Amino acid sequence: MNRLQVIPVEGIAEVTPGDNLAELILAAVSLEGGDVVVVTQKVVSKAEGRIVPLDHDDPVAKRRLVEGESRRIVRVRGDLVISETKHGFVCANAGIDLSNVADGTAALLPVDPDRSARWIRDGIRARAGVEVGVVVSDTFGRPWRNGLTDVAIGTAGVAAVVDLRGSEDTSGRELQVTQVCVADEIAGAAELVMGKAFGIPAAVVRGLPEEWLRESSVRTEVIRGPADDLFR
Amino acid sequence: MNRLQVIPVEGIAEVTPGDNLAELILAAVSLEGGDVVVVTQKVVSKAEGRIVPLDHDDPVAKRRLVEGESRRIVRVRGDLVISETKHGFVCANAGIDLSNVADGTAALLPVDPDRSARWIRDGIRARAGVEVGVVVSDTFGRPWRNGLTDVAIGTAGVAAVVDLRGSEDTSGRELQVTQVCVADEIAGAAELVMGKAFGIPAAVVRGLPEEWLRESSVRTEVIRGPADDLFR
Repeated sequence: MNRLQVIPVEGIAEVTPGDNLAELILAAVSLEGGDVVVVTQKVVSKAEGRIVPLDHDDPVAKRRLVEGESRRIVRVRGDLVISETKHGFVCANAGIDLSNVADGTAALLPVDPDRSARWIRDGIRARAGVEVGVVVSDTFGRPWRNGLTDVAIGTAGVAAVVDLRGSEDTSGRELQVTQVCVADEIAGAAELVMGKAFGIPAAVVRGLPEEWLRESSVRTEVIRGPADDLFR
Repeated sequence: MNRLQVIPVEGIAEVTPGDNLAELILAAVSLEGGDVVVVTQKVVSKAEGRIVPLDHDDPVAKRRLVEGESRRIVRVRGDLVISETKHGFVCANAGIDLSNVADGTAALLPVDPDRSARWIRDGIRARAGVEVGVVVSDTFGRPWRNGLTDVAIGTAGVAAVVDLRGSEDTSGRELQVTQVCVADEIAGAAELVMGKAFGIPAAVVRGLPEEWLRESSVRTEVIRGPADDLFR
């Protein structure tokens, strides 16, 4: 295995609707073929104009917005709503973000984060002629464990889940652990250099196995269908 | 922010009960102060002798073993048991591992993975005079998302959860996202270079912020108590 580098992409200015993220990223960092660029949901949502007015002090308006972005409410405790978004993500407040946005506004999740990742990947390819993977990341909580981690909500050009079924362990026995969500691990690794308080919206992960660089989708690979889900 | 390096630790031979992991790691890699060493549960369990006989083809014996390591069964579907271990981890089969162990045996989780991490950290300090953090990692599934990821089951000398409460975002507003489980993100980053099928049992993460290097515990920082848990 190679060693990895995880490189923060600094110097990206405030993103506004209509901005071309591929262009902004290429202006800030020198990319190599096989790099995976992790871009946070917030700048993707801003570039795509997924910003809506919201009075942060109006809990009713906030609740209505969360419900409008959800297809199912999973749990409620006080102000906290855990819901399933229209994409199928189960997370707090339908992924709606109130920090690092202009006062009186909120950032919704991208409509189709896999498509967002493809747009950025295609833009980088077209402008720089370099073939990279892209992960759009967001910060989710999870049951049973404190603390949030960054996970992948969209991917392009890099595997979301790597299937080791049929692989053998070092003693020749079939592996018990079979499918690894490398896209979530890549998103988490990137978060370690982005630092929520520092406003770094992207990072590059360099050195991943070449065989992971392929067409991919969080929607089809990562989101678990109702039939397979023990926690609905 | 600095860039990170994630370095696979290759050349560690088969681990057997009584082996000193600090010694084996130091023989395989050159460590620097501030490095975080991620060690997989399996070699920790082997070194600590947490190997028990188990006929892999006897589902009743397997189920009995899982129940013996659990304090609560959370969900059952067919052969799959999701339980809460005596430590408080919610995972499949109480974390009992049948791959990469000798035939007719199974590896149980370490009795106290935070203590395991401290032993390794202290051993590295004593032998090499270098101050590192240690994360003991394991591979867990999670609700709603396909694919497994590596998470921290024990830590020493590196924060499990970093508390950003009270920090401000780049526009001076208090951050909505507050607590990040960096230990899980470190474990996931390490998994990217360890590759289940390659038998690499450890990795080094170099370049993490100095302020994260402190006393820590997965048990007290990460495991969510019943009162805070919406998914029991």
